[in-house]
Amino acid sequence: MLGTAAGLPTPQRSLPAVAVEVDGETILFDCGEGTQRQMMVAGISLCRKMKIFITHLHGDHIFGLPGLLQTMNLMNRSHPLHIFGPPGIDDFIRKVGFTLADPVFDLLVSEVCEGEIHREGRYNVEGAWAEHSRPSMAYRLTVGASLGRFRPDRAKALGVPEGPLWSVLKRGEEVELEGGRTVHPAEVLGEPIRGRTLVYTGDTRPSESVVRLASGADLLIHEATFGSELAENAESEGHSTAGGAARVALKAGVGRLILTHISARYPDPTALEEEARAIFGNTEVAHDFMTIQLQGQG
Amino acid sequence: MLGTAAGLPTPQRSLPAVAVEVDGETILFDCGEGTQRQMMVAGISLCRKMKIFITHLHGDHIFGLPGLLQTMNLMNRSHPLHIFGPPGIDDFIRKVGFTLADPVFDLLVSEVCEGEIHREGRYNVEGAWAEHSRPSMAYRLTVGASLGRFRPDRAKALGVPEGPLWSVLKRGEEVELEGGRTVHPAEVLGEPIRGRTLVYTGDTRPSESVVRLASGADLLIHEATFGSELAENAESEGHSTAGGAARVALKAGVGRLILTHISARYPDPTALEEEARAIFGNTEVAHDFMTIQLQGQG
Repeated sequence: MLGTAAGLPTPQRSLPAVAVEVDGETILFDCGEGTQRQMMVAGISLCRKMKIFITHLHGDHIFGLPGLLQTMNLMNRSHPLHIFGPPGIDDFIRKVGFTLADPVFDLLVSEVCEGEIHREGRYNVEGAWAEHSRPSMAYRLTVGASLGRFRPDRAKALGVPEGPLWSVLKRGEEVELEGGRTVHPAEVLGEPIRGRTLVYTGDTRPSESVVRLASGADLLIHEATFGSELAENAESEGHSTAGGAARVALKAGVGRLILTHISARYPDPTALEEEARAIFGNTEVAHDFMTIQLQGQG
Repeated sequence: MLGTAAGLPTPQRSLPAVAVEVDGETILFDCGEGTQRQMMVAGISLCRKMKIFITHLHGDHIFGLPGLLQTMNLMNRSHPLHIFGPPGIDDFIRKVGFTLADPVFDLLVSEVCEGEIHREGRYNVEGAWAEHSRPSMAYRLTVGASLGRFRPDRAKALGVPEGPLWSVLKRGEEVELEGGRTVHPAEVLGEPIRGRTLVYTGDTRPSESVVRLASGADLLIHEATFGSELAENAESEGHSTAGGAARVALKAGVGRLILTHISARYPDPTALEEEARAIFGNTEVAHDFMTIQLQGQG
């Protein structure tokens, strides 16, 4: 958790950013001002393989991008960098990029829409629109999900001849045998491996689409800008209370809830944590440099 | 000293920014990424009277502006904010401002040229072009300078009648007496009060125009990106070595030299300090949150 503040930083909390390490690559969600320095303090290289997923185009979630890109340039980054975000992200990067030399690395920028956004190696990222004052994308990262193990005994028993048809079934596609019988992959594969799943909401009021996106996730990192005493502000500004975030976690049936995007008015977030725990027990309020080992299967 | 790094921040050094407190106002020189948070840590309010002087339009000196402006907006700043900088500063602020709501405070942006740039209350700011890869303005801040005290005895002895002519002389203007004799203010005023003077260079190679600007200053805050072993890099990139900065201090006859804009390759800056002290004794390398009481007269 590189930055856990809401719109204003505090001496204790930097602006929003979450770095996830997956198989030697860094997946960064949001890039508030100061993110490059938080990465340095956390010992995360700016030169290695990396993707950035931006939830929305409010300054506190993107003003760290220009400096991050400039530093990568000064460091002669060689790996390409791929940035994903809502429509407008490309324009923002080009507008502030005018103070930069042309990047020495390949810079790809993709404007995202709902559904599967990226798939690579052992992970994929899906998105769903959250509910904020600006279009804001919540992201679901799944690592290590895979089909169940192929069971040759079952394939043989069903009369599938060893050879190319087995490969089709192993890929999770159905095959038609001579004689017209269709064999579905579920008939010959063991239990699928769920992988480990993390959902990061960005800014949002409690949202049914986030509940669906987070369904069964191992970890939900949900914004909780306010406590319940400011529920009206949360509703009108498109934010969540700690209790609202906890209700989303409960409905989605997640394993664990981390609250972030904590307003500067809560130097001590204990009350937020208690408010959420009364609804969803396995809750913690994030702090900068908190590290989490993502539990799960795969 | 809010940020003392060169182009790259480090865990110890934030990006360039210097805040000067003058009669309850904050004068900020440069605004690298992270400046708003450094101000919060240093206990400097973002809501009080403030001017910002930007030396040049490289990202490490300006990427803290968008977030600072957004935070001032969120805090409902009431004081106007006046930003000065080289041509292009207005364009930069408008380009990145697109993520902001209209500022709730008066935002003035002035593109500067050499000479006196601003005068207000007990201080004034002058500028001179430094020598960098982009137009970069060095600034001289003088506080509390004033004419010497009026000496009625001398005025009487010179035959200046008490009344309006005395006021003219007190303002530092000459008067002509009946009979054609001209009295110069120096004849009736005591020693002028020099005030306290600080010069901040921004990025520059050792420069004669900075020597002139810094002439007799109480404090020179000079960049020293490199040590003498990288003198060629300094020259080609428009930066100074510690020794180069010290020679400027010596030539200008300043009271004290602070080295800043220290490259990340010097986690221990002792060698830079020693290199400079061999030439100009009263030298220190800045560190983040270093505070300096500006000595001088006035």
